[in-house]
Amino acid sequence: MQNYLSKKEEDYSKWYNELVVKAGLAENSGVKGCMVVKPYGYAIWEKIQAELDKRFKDTGHVNAYFPIFIPKSHMNKEAKHVDGFAKECAVVTHYRLKNDENGNLVVDENAKLEEELIVRPTSETIIWDTYRKWIQSYRDLPILINQWANVVRWEMRTRFFLRTTEFLWQEGHTAHATREEAIEEAKTILDLYSDFVQDFMAIPVIKGIKTDSERFAGADETFCIEALMQDGKALQAGTSHFLGQNFAKAFDVKFSDEKGDTNFVWATSWGVSTRLMGALIMTHSDNKGLVLPPKLAPLQVVIIPIYRDAKELKEISNRVEEIKKSIDAKGISVRYDDNDNKKPGWKFNEYELKGVPVRISIGMKELKENTVELVRRDTLVKEVISQDILSEKIEITLEDMQFDLLKKAEEFRAKNTVEVNSYEEFKEVLKQKGGFISAHWDGTSHTEEAIKKETQASIRCILLDSKQEEGKCIYSGEPSNRRVIFAKAY
Amino acid sequence: MQNYLSKKEEDYSKWYNELVVKAGLAENSGVKGCMVVKPYGYAIWEKIQAELDKRFKDTGHVNAYFPIFIPKSHMNKEAKHVDGFAKECAVVTHYRLKNDENGNLVVDENAKLEEELIVRPTSETIIWDTYRKWIQSYRDLPILINQWANVVRWEMRTRFFLRTTEFLWQEGHTAHATREEAIEEAKTILDLYSDFVQDFMAIPVIKGIKTDSERFAGADETFCIEALMQDGKALQAGTSHFLGQNFAKAFDVKFSDEKGDTNFVWATSWGVSTRLMGALIMTHSDNKGLVLPPKLAPLQVVIIPIYRDAKELKEISNRVEEIKKSIDAKGISVRYDDNDNKKPGWKFNEYELKGVPVRISIGMKELKENTVELVRRDTLVKEVISQDILSEKIEITLEDMQFDLLKKAEEFRAKNTVEVNSYEEFKEVLKQKGGFISAHWDGTSHTEEAIKKETQASIRCILLDSKQEEGKCIYSGEPSNRRVIFAKAY
Repeated sequence: MQNYLSKKEEDYSKWYNELVVKAGLAENSGVKGCMVVKPYGYAIWEKIQAELDKRFKDTGHVNAYFPIFIPKSHMNKEAKHVDGFAKECAVVTHYRLKNDENGNLVVDENAKLEEELIVRPTSETIIWDTYRKWIQSYRDLPILINQWANVVRWEMRTRFFLRTTEFLWQEGHTAHATREEAIEEAKTILDLYSDFVQDFMAIPVIKGIKTDSERFAGADETFCIEALMQDGKALQAGTSHFLGQNFAKAFDVKFSDEKGDTNFVWATSWGVSTRLMGALIMTHSDNKGLVLPPKLAPLQVVIIPIYRDAKELKEISNRVEEIKKSIDAKGISVRYDDNDNKKPGWKFNEYELKGVPVRISIGMKELKENTVELVRRDTLVKEVISQDILSEKIEITLEDMQFDLLKKAEEFRAKNTVEVNSYEEFKEVLKQKGGFISAHWDGTSHTEEAIKKETQASIRCILLDSKQEEGKCIYSGEPSNRRVIFAKAY
Repeated sequence: MQNYLSKKEEDYSKWYNELVVKAGLAENSGVKGCMVVKPYGYAIWEKIQAELDKRFKDTGHVNAYFPIFIPKSHMNKEAKHVDGFAKECAVVTHYRLKNDENGNLVVDENAKLEEELIVRPTSETIIWDTYRKWIQSYRDLPILINQWANVVRWEMRTRFFLRTTEFLWQEGHTAHATREEAIEEAKTILDLYSDFVQDFMAIPVIKGIKTDSERFAGADETFCIEALMQDGKALQAGTSHFLGQNFAKAFDVKFSDEKGDTNFVWATSWGVSTRLMGALIMTHSDNKGLVLPPKLAPLQVVIIPIYRDAKELKEISNRVEEIKKSIDAKGISVRYDDNDNKKPGWKFNEYELKGVPVRISIGMKELKENTVELVRRDTLVKEVISQDILSEKIEITLEDMQFDLLKKAEEFRAKNTVEVNSYEEFKEVLKQKGGFISAHWDGTSHTEEAIKKETQASIRCILLDSKQEEGKCIYSGEPSNRRVIFAKAY
């Protein structure tokens, strides 16, 4: 029996959760707040990883691995950082269990750690404690390191991919001789993220700077990319932080420059996570399930035979073998699903649920006419295609689909980005459709918080390419010289 | 200033530790027992990962990701498993830190977990708790899943790569309808490991079965591959476990077969870890540093210019540009090191330390004569080669070196594998040179432990292809019908 999804127009959140589970992306585990990333979900994540990793390496970065544990004292060295992370961290206090007199498994109090260890929520502290040993001279700089890792932040309310206690991510940590070079690195990575998310995931993003209150704990400046989901809420898809000399000072990391003068080192850190999976789902998918951009789809083409008996199946299978070869030869991933236990209709639904970009079906009629039926996942439009040109047609269809998904998402975002000039207008737009709202703001945290409290909308960013424009803060009426982007956010 | 290594003949352990640090593979971190895997070490691990991952996928396995935390109650469900792992695990007891009245960062006792969480030492329990939800019918089987992850086992005495509190590994966890299929899977993976380690890492291994006392906690049978290190000690390089129905019973995982009968599921698990890095180092390296099999080397060829002034460097560099292109074109990784701050001699030492398989040097004489000097890392023999055939020569040299390293290691192992027929002989061999010792054993844990206590040698395995042979246990004199392999081990 096949399970259908809830309608996203009726309950977006329910639709999302059902889609994640039914499409085989992830499910809840026996550990509160932690999910199991299932094989199909992980295969998509592997594609994200592989492409990002390539782009990191092409820009001169190398991978390394730092310990999962952070001694409590390390955590305490950067004041803002500890405030940001100490309240939501998993603390290891003991290193042994034992059986008590009743045979119950209990913590062994004789195996208490002298200093508690934190399961890393992010690795700035352990990494800068290490960089101190690596950096003496300007010749040791820059250090351009990335790490693929799991991190833990104790979340009370969790949602698949968007907010989980443990999540997977990459975290870059770089060290530089000058402020300018570090800022340049943070921006280079922001562009890398933005290009990747748009070109590969077909998700359009805006690039901007976070306000003081939304900045990473320990950063001087946080650059971000923000995407707009189908329900009108924003999602922060990646961040790149200019850390100034904050961690260098906290961990005493200095270098001697060419003149022999000693200075603190400049830093950046940047990351994207399995959160991108959430962005992917909420940008493209529909009531039939996932819609995957072809570049990201673990399986790009599925071929389904339509037959009445074993003899027909045999005939079709023989033909499909050749067809499959021609598709394989183009480097396109293809599966022939001749499972006899499921009806074609069941399979159609299943592969729509899983977001396979192109479905080919072939029965006796098509066999005779030397054609196949081709259906694109995003449009669900059926086309009859000659077998002679099929592999070329598929190649073009995948390219078209990749392009069209981005275009569609861009159009959606354009339609859902509005400028407002009063608080009433602001609240009305939020109520009607949400989206990105461009508005004047007086630059104070006080106003930012008041608006957030009253409307749940936060400042997503100050656009990097925002123009100077005289205006009045929609909340306080105080003068403002540029607009910022508000939205309700995940 | 360059640091030279200790001699391995004088202090093997010291040589090993120095090599790991100086070649840039790893270093100690601020967290006891945890190491930092540095970029060069990690690049080698990435090559190991990529090749293994390909082989897993080629044999029908898929990747997934399960939570890092295991609830204490899960851990307690399989009796032998808990005995094996509960005594050396990191226990998370709290989920928040706070500042006390003196401003010190302390554990917040109001944030105590109801049930403690174990940082996974291995994932059988959390995975079988999940498999229960995935498996109802024989149609859901087999499940062939692998996970790349970090795990934690609280070790008191640690050594780089060989034994660290946190380490990186892959762990496969498969579920099957029959006992035979599960055993077949465990053996298939053992062969996969063995082929990979021999073909790719140039490390010869023996394949065998562990005795009762050396078996994985929770397994019915542990298959292993064992390698012999240069100092005559054995190293367990990988294990593949037939878990019987132990975890299925502990977590109540049943399936209905084709007839509708309900049965417990059969299981395997298998893993290799960053320990392989230790095996790599201790199989091939010498007093000048690492020796890397070409297939595993992040950098395969380095080109070093020999020059007196900028004019000469320019001339050489122009020529090298072309040479480099021809090497690149063969898919061989090559770097031209024209760093003007280091002398050629320094560079020679540095790349020998790092184990780069082929070094090319080129000066004005070579430029004039259209030659280069080529040095193979393992033999350090110098050859003068015409530039016209250089890329082909390099290609052949890399292949030769890959082959020769395995051959050399095989010869070493052959020379250090002996049959003994008395306990005196046994102790004498152990004292003289160590190595693999083939001897008769009465099959009891009592004898095995007595020998281990008296000599530190343990039974590494019972060879899979061991022949039946009547004999007497070297320790007890009791009858034995096959030899087993003893060694001191890492």
